[in-house]
Amino acid sequence: MNYNQYTSRLLERAVNEFAKLPGIGRKTALRLVLHLLKQPDEDVEIFSHSLTSLKKEIFHCAKCHNISDQEVCSICSNNKRDASLICVVENIRNVMAIEATQQFNGLYHVLGGVISPMDGIGPADLTMDSLVGRVSSEEVKEVILALSATMEGDTTNLFIYRKLGDFDINISTLARGVAIGDELEYTDEITLGRSILHRTPFRSSLNNS
Amino acid sequence: MNYNQYTSRLLERAVNEFAKLPGIGRKTALRLVLHLLKQPDEDVEIFSHSLTSLKKEIFHCAKCHNISDQEVCSICSNNKRDASLICVVENIRNVMAIEATQQFNGLYHVLGGVISPMDGIGPADLTMDSLVGRVSSEEVKEVILALSATMEGDTTNLFIYRKLGDFDINISTLARGVAIGDELEYTDEITLGRSILHRTPFRSSLNNS
Repeated sequence: MNYNQYTSRLLERAVNEFAKLPGIGRKTALRLVLHLLKQPDEDVEIFSHSLTSLKKEIFHCAKCHNISDQEVCSICSNNKRDASLICVVENIRNVMAIEATQQFNGLYHVLGGVISPMDGIGPADLTMDSLVGRVSSEEVKEVILALSATMEGDTTNLFIYRKLGDFDINISTLARGVAIGDELEYTDEITLGRSILHRTPFRSSLNNS
Repeated sequence: MNYNQYTSRLLERAVNEFAKLPGIGRKTALRLVLHLLKQPDEDVEIFSHSLTSLKKEIFHCAKCHNISDQEVCSICSNNKRDASLICVVENIRNVMAIEATQQFNGLYHVLGGVISPMDGIGPADLTMDSLVGRVSSEEVKEVILALSATMEGDTTNLFIYRKLGDFDINISTLARGVAIGDELEYTDEITLGRSILHRTPFRSSLNNS
């Protein structure tokens, strides 16, 4: 159905703004705006204030480039975390995903993307120099490359590996293999092939479960 | 995955606000907020201003209760529309849906819902009195009941039919039948049954197509 005719320009403007968000079509945008219209004035005020204050008051951590309320984020400024271990990720959602596992106690480095010539993203668009700076100045022992298992991710991994090749540190990547809960017949061939090549001693799988 | 740990309270607050919207979960909310965070300051300002100004400056049309920028909406104040014909709908989205068909040239009356004892919505919660007022004071010749084909819609139809029974007007409802493009074997029995009972002369279907 074609919803071109709005009886109110204010309504149309708000719908247009919502429809700019990723994955939000005009019909969903209208539903969201009409929902907000039914809410009390204060609630809409709080909603819109939360966005402007987010935009104005937020920092990117000076060390790891994670989103933060202070100049240095709560992870980087936490003394209980292992500063000799840096996990390189693409974006803040990856930080949250890894934090949610509660299996990592080091620091992060948010690249802000991966090298992708197709999208015009080169090493200079990422926080690559800052990573090299951290490795050369801090007491880093290991860098974990936790990028997506895509071609762009692999390219970026290789680029970082070469950049950090002169430093006396370990460089590791995430283990690739059959995901927990996956059925073998639905696992793709490359993953399955790699998981046979890089098979682990059965004893170590007992310790982790 | 569990995304409980935000490294920024500002971020968390914005995500919480988005997650209050219908059909938006916490993961989608995070995606939307991170998208806004990447936009220029002005764009976020415009986005949030469009919401507050919508809430503050919008009117509900004094005649038909449609959403409007003026006290009387652009449909009600349009002299070219047939004021003797009132189409009763549940909400503004229905107004837009019917306007999009370009088949209706009368005015609307937005009820604001349908009678639903389960949800605690009675006739007093709707713009029922205002509808009776319009019919008694204006030169209305026909009221079209265009509510949903649900039990609540039918109940509301019947209620309005009785309320307006004393006036010398025609009361009609939307034609029910097999939707255009529908295959007969997938049409539900009640709709199919009704569409046989209320079959129309073949000649009239030729005129409409």
